[in-house]
Amino acid sequence: MAPKENNPHPFEDPSSFLPGVSIDCVIIGFDLKELNILLLKLKGSEQWSLPGGFVYLDEDMDQAASRILEERTGIRLPYLKQFHTFGDLNRRENAPFIEGNSVLAKHFKKMLPILERRFISTGYLSLVNMHSSAPTPDAWSDSCAWTPLDDLPHMIYDHHQIVDKALEQIRHQINYLPIGISLLPEKFTMKEYQLLYEKILQKKLDRANFQKKMLKLGFLDRHEKQLTGGAHKAPFLYAFNESKYQELLERGIGYLS
Amino acid sequence: MAPKENNPHPFEDPSSFLPGVSIDCVIIGFDLKELNILLLKLKGSEQWSLPGGFVYLDEDMDQAASRILEERTGIRLPYLKQFHTFGDLNRRENAPFIEGNSVLAKHFKKMLPILERRFISTGYLSLVNMHSSAPTPDAWSDSCAWTPLDDLPHMIYDHHQIVDKALEQIRHQINYLPIGISLLPEKFTMKEYQLLYEKILQKKLDRANFQKKMLKLGFLDRHEKQLTGGAHKAPFLYAFNESKYQELLERGIGYLS
Repeated sequence: MAPKENNPHPFEDPSSFLPGVSIDCVIIGFDLKELNILLLKLKGSEQWSLPGGFVYLDEDMDQAASRILEERTGIRLPYLKQFHTFGDLNRRENAPFIEGNSVLAKHFKKMLPILERRFISTGYLSLVNMHSSAPTPDAWSDSCAWTPLDDLPHMIYDHHQIVDKALEQIRHQINYLPIGISLLPEKFTMKEYQLLYEKILQKKLDRANFQKKMLKLGFLDRHEKQLTGGAHKAPFLYAFNESKYQELLERGIGYLS
Repeated sequence: MAPKENNPHPFEDPSSFLPGVSIDCVIIGFDLKELNILLLKLKGSEQWSLPGGFVYLDEDMDQAASRILEERTGIRLPYLKQFHTFGDLNRRENAPFIEGNSVLAKHFKKMLPILERRFISTGYLSLVNMHSSAPTPDAWSDSCAWTPLDDLPHMIYDHHQIVDKALEQIRHQINYLPIGISLLPEKFTMKEYQLLYEKILQKKLDRANFQKKMLKLGFLDRHEKQLTGGAHKAPFLYAFNESKYQELLERGIGYLS
């Protein structure tokens, strides 16, 4: 997404922002092999960051999260889930380095009143289908890319810690909530579904036990077999039963329920 | 806790704080009948609030939460759990009203550069044993009191919403983590333990089912019967098995584990 001429970039005027507070977005995708995180590469540098920005003085924080994500990556998500606020004193030690006289440096100069002082950051999180998203870098970035979680580049500030905390949050949630409806294609194999859990939990799961427990919860519908060369080996395809999935999202998969 | 003469009250100098960011603490207790929240009543007024304050420029947010709680209530907790950041534009609509020329008004006047501008608030949460805590109001407050959750007074800002969100967080957590070790006396009856869950979940639970599920998890040890008039009716007493409790805290009570 190229910057619009008649839409001044939000980094133009520091006085229109709430001081002391920024937002960073952890957008997680799954390509049926790996978890991926959406990252931006700062223009003319090798420095990567989460899509982030500041909150306008006249804007709710939750709205700011959606706006910032769209401005910086082109991805429009009406709702992101807030998961943690990062307020350590030293969180900005690994600040981005901006080269001398570049256009970027001039713009950053305007934002120095905000960027040079301490600010905390509130993390927002979303799980998205990688294949229906089209990430586009903003005017500050050379690229906006899905990056495998196992192979993240060096990132500015405490962004590695922000990613870790987002994943910790998801690991907790899959103990009592269904997951995957926004990460997977319409139909998928049980093996692919199990791999998603394994990537989140960062451990192997027993195949028979996983399948049994998932099917027992009733939020997966079984469809026709996937066509392959050897028909006898073709795996069944599954899809989420949306009403059952929603019901479990609301009441939780608790040991007391 | 009276303010110390040689320890200036933190509300004295607004320039020593991070602008835009405050902290509010939701401290929850259980008296074997009701959940209670620790509240402060503003000096010379009928206005109540959660114990809150601002973050020093040279202080981690997590440390600020403990410091603020101790300064305002006398209760020392080395760790509070951050649960949500409240950043709605209108969250301060119900601001406290400070009477004209009181000592309090003079002190608040100094803080106006911070108090009159927009600030977000990060909520921190702790569950404590009411009977081993001795809440003491600070110099800004007439009282510091445990207040039944079902009978909360009118509170400033969005503090009702902050309490609701803290309880929502706990309701989620009891789906996959044990609870109660910091809320209950050393020994308690199963009926008392069930009541704690019912107060958190805000619904009745089946007695036999609750007991069966709790005992199966193995983090409760059964002790001698409580002595009462009619010995045949005396209930068993239980205590937490700390090592088992800790183990469940770490691995969670998930449907996949």
